[in-house]
Amino acid sequence: MMDIIDGGVTTPVGFRAAGVACGIKRPTADGGTPLDLAMLAADETVPAAGVFTTNKATAAPVEISRAHLAASGGRARVVVINSGCANACTGPAGVDAAQQMAAAAAAALGCPATEVLIASTGVIGVQLDPAKVRAGVEAAHRVVDTAGGPAAARAIMTTDPFPKSCAAVVETGGGRFRVGGMAKGSGMIEPRMATMLAVLTTDAAIAPDVLGGALRRVVDDSFNAITVDGECSTNDCVFLLASGRAGVAFTRDDDPRLLDALGAVAGRLARDIVRGGEGATRLVTVRVTGAATDSDARLAARTIANSPLVKTAIHGGDPNWGRLVAAAGRSGAAFVLDRASVAIGPADPRAPQVELFARGVPHDERADEAAALLRGTEVTVTVDVGAGGTHAATMWTCDFSAEYVRINAEYRT
Amino acid sequence: MMDIIDGGVTTPVGFRAAGVACGIKRPTADGGTPLDLAMLAADETVPAAGVFTTNKATAAPVEISRAHLAASGGRARVVVINSGCANACTGPAGVDAAQQMAAAAAAALGCPATEVLIASTGVIGVQLDPAKVRAGVEAAHRVVDTAGGPAAARAIMTTDPFPKSCAAVVETGGGRFRVGGMAKGSGMIEPRMATMLAVLTTDAAIAPDVLGGALRRVVDDSFNAITVDGECSTNDCVFLLASGRAGVAFTRDDDPRLLDALGAVAGRLARDIVRGGEGATRLVTVRVTGAATDSDARLAARTIANSPLVKTAIHGGDPNWGRLVAAAGRSGAAFVLDRASVAIGPADPRAPQVELFARGVPHDERADEAAALLRGTEVTVTVDVGAGGTHAATMWTCDFSAEYVRINAEYRT
Repeated sequence: MMDIIDGGVTTPVGFRAAGVACGIKRPTADGGTPLDLAMLAADETVPAAGVFTTNKATAAPVEISRAHLAASGGRARVVVINSGCANACTGPAGVDAAQQMAAAAAAALGCPATEVLIASTGVIGVQLDPAKVRAGVEAAHRVVDTAGGPAAARAIMTTDPFPKSCAAVVETGGGRFRVGGMAKGSGMIEPRMATMLAVLTTDAAIAPDVLGGALRRVVDDSFNAITVDGECSTNDCVFLLASGRAGVAFTRDDDPRLLDALGAVAGRLARDIVRGGEGATRLVTVRVTGAATDSDARLAARTIANSPLVKTAIHGGDPNWGRLVAAAGRSGAAFVLDRASVAIGPADPRAPQVELFARGVPHDERADEAAALLRGTEVTVTVDVGAGGTHAATMWTCDFSAEYVRINAEYRT
Repeated sequence: MMDIIDGGVTTPVGFRAAGVACGIKRPTADGGTPLDLAMLAADETVPAAGVFTTNKATAAPVEISRAHLAASGGRARVVVINSGCANACTGPAGVDAAQQMAAAAAAALGCPATEVLIASTGVIGVQLDPAKVRAGVEAAHRVVDTAGGPAAARAIMTTDPFPKSCAAVVETGGGRFRVGGMAKGSGMIEPRMATMLAVLTTDAAIAPDVLGGALRRVVDDSFNAITVDGECSTNDCVFLLASGRAGVAFTRDDDPRLLDALGAVAGRLARDIVRGGEGATRLVTVRVTGAATDSDARLAARTIANSPLVKTAIHGGDPNWGRLVAAAGRSGAAFVLDRASVAIGPADPRAPQVELFARGVPHDERADEAAALLRGTEVTVTVDVGAGGTHAATMWTCDFSAEYVRINAEYRT
């Protein structure tokens, strides 16, 4: 039995967190100092895993965290994340700043630097001030606490409109364990490998290699199944730490009790990232059915989910199913127009759908009904690509608004 | 010697054109009847070639034109294009309407239906009224004239802010020949095969197979090298007809005199499509250098040219070179961050560039200079992907504005 609760990275036993302001972000208009450094500390060194961006312009903190996980054999004591500066494309000075960030956390926690995982988010190409980060790490370490999850989730935000945290409590025959998580998203969200920053924790006992396998499985159907704008950042990573304090152990990375709990938290965080996407006003579930292969289904779903014409039509509440057909048709997936169909439905993809295009023929008589559904904040669009197969895929995306343009035309200047 | 002149499809000898209003488009707010049907008639049946969309959701007129070119052995007498309705995803009724469109033109011109090329542009999934089209074809045939090029170019517009026509006059040792063209673009512009509607004419004498080869070569560096929004439409096609009236003949599809003239007209029309892209305020030349292969160079250039974050930054006049690096890094092309560079320059890519990121290190001291260049209506961005190769590619794109969203959220409703 699983309950999804308000909670976060410190809901599982054995983790403390903090979010502090150390001056990386500019003061707000009213003189406030926004939180810009988060720490998640395990009570002791614990198994840890990470998945990282596939972008070849990899930020220094990503390179360092990947190296640390390899060197420590998949174990970590602390995660430090700053917002306001991505420390990406910053050359040797950026690598040095990232190393100082890790060293400061290692000194504070009394652990080897290889047991520190770091991440950064914000503008690319700006140098990270090591003195600010060192001060932030020390300040965070002074206040790190089991109640610090909410502050940590706020400290990793950039243009996110709201913090993203959640937790799951699972009763198994053998006892209770918890999964918690926090994430930041907003722009540069794309469905490859890791797609934003997220930290997941659990108090189940899981060895590093099992943890890594489970994380990769879960990421594929959560953070890798969302898109805001098709961009894949230089800094994306997802970390998972397991304290083992709950007395429930998993030895297989495909254990459904573990995957369900991790999946519930990761899926919720992923959809919250889309809900909070830059300029987003609607959460859109994109379903592709009738595909010849799994990869065709995913390819068509991804193309639809990233199509500017689809996303602007949904923003305008326009049941313009032709744009869905056109996007599926250009995706490269096998597509047979005179057997293809398009339907629009409410948030729940199992609810009845309004079919607007059926086996190659328009049914615009139901357009008003579909337009009414599109005025909701959550909609489902289903495209049968007509290839006669049984393969399907689901992705989550948001609509595309003028506000996205405003945010991204003005983000830095 | 080649002169680019104001002109169009009727500049070459042997062609007449017309643009008429037949009621496919709604009347304008002031009760005007917008032009929505264009005809280009050759004085006799002439060699013709076409390239078509790669979208698998192919519109009826595309299927029919492709079949006609095959059946006629690459010969055509007349091209008919309507705007206001794409006749795509319209099932058997749409095929019937497209056939009636071709039959009406064949009857008017007294030629076989297989010598008629047709195209449609506008909203997907709406039925084309055959009666309106037949009336339009008859009206166009009544007024078709050597002075009709400008009206034809206006009649194929949808959301295009201005008509697109141009012509070239070439003096060769063996005589003079002309190339003319018209195009429509605006949205759903993407660099695959054909990417919008365009009609090119020439009065050089060229056999059908040579004409087809030359057209494919020219399209690759013009219409396939532009993007507005990464979308590839159901209806895209480019036609080329050769009247042979000039007394200059070409027997090789790689003859530089022919390719230069076709390329000059096609390139100008292609860049005009980007200038007139939905919501566009800037024409951006994207150059990728230092790539390991030609396909890597094109892949990186296309990814940059379609990146929403790059396009919004350019819209905001923000020299945010980090987004260019990130887009190149995620493109899939070989990319080496610490040997990569980014520069911004004026319209002419041969002019001095402002380097903002050089071999992996930021040079933001020149950001103000780059920002000044970005305030121009034409800019060049150059990304060296650092892969150590000598391969390069150029694409043209536009910035991404709130106006794009407004146009596409409101296009149909």
